[in-house]
Amino acid sequence: MGFADGTTCEYVYFKSGGTVAIAAFTDDNKMILTKQYRHPLQKVVYDIPGGAIEAGEMPSQAALRELEEETGYTTEKLEWIGKFSRGPSSQAIVDLFFARVRRKGSFNKNEMVQVEMIDLDSLIQRISDGECFDAALTIAALLVSWKKLLDK
Amino acid sequence: MGFADGTTCEYVYFKSGGTVAIAAFTDDNKMILTKQYRHPLQKVVYDIPGGAIEAGEMPSQAALRELEEETGYTTEKLEWIGKFSRGPSSQAIVDLFFARVRRKGSFNKNEMVQVEMIDLDSLIQRISDGECFDAALTIAALLVSWKKLLDK
Repeated sequence: MGFADGTTCEYVYFKSGGTVAIAAFTDDNKMILTKQYRHPLQKVVYDIPGGAIEAGEMPSQAALRELEEETGYTTEKLEWIGKFSRGPSSQAIVDLFFARVRRKGSFNKNEMVQVEMIDLDSLIQRISDGECFDAALTIAALLVSWKKLLDK
Repeated sequence: MGFADGTTCEYVYFKSGGTVAIAAFTDDNKMILTKQYRHPLQKVVYDIPGGAIEAGEMPSQAALRELEEETGYTTEKLEWIGKFSRGPSSQAIVDLFFARVRRKGSFNKNEMVQVEMIDLDSLIQRISDGECFDAALTIAALLVSWKKLLDK
């Protein structure tokens, strides 16, 4: 890329399309976390259901597909609650959705994801302590709290 | 990387050290935003002061240096308020700090950063509407709100 003064610099970044992530809550206000091994961090990290938007999909369709594939839960309604950009070296925007979910009859166990349930307040305390730190999980949990979506 | 069943896959990610970002507030509760051109997104994006930890630096030292370099403000005290990971394709952890700041006498104008001031509530409304979406800015603002740091 070039600057106004004529200098140029190399700007290395990841090319990618859009991504979605879902703040999924059961009827008793438990948030569904997923656990996945993150090779760059060399450890298992808590995050939330989500993934890349596939060709021809709307973001909400991708969110429903990822929710069902990764957790075995489904929903009738996905509410867009915000978006974020991972950082300077990424063009990916992550759209965040909120959903009340229930177990789905069939579940493809081929997706290597473990699921855990947690109260929102306990989760935000863990975020505050640095124990949970995935960006999508963190932003989704804090937005659900700020928007008071569980009180509705 | 290899899996228990003997299969392997390629895992592409950015190698990097730690990064810091600062939720900096003036005495009248204005948060300092920085504006930077993000080539991957092809536009100017609001974020907060921050950057990479240099060799030999503590995270808090890096935070103070970046704050001073990018904004011309300084502080006596940096409070660690949390951390986050940008996502699956990054090993970078971003440590977040809160600081009450004041203008510094000297200011190196060579850093190409524009600064804007905003109320926390206005900023979170803009985050909620998707107008501000940088991950560090978003998490820092929501954590300051959740921890009620401006009430202290």
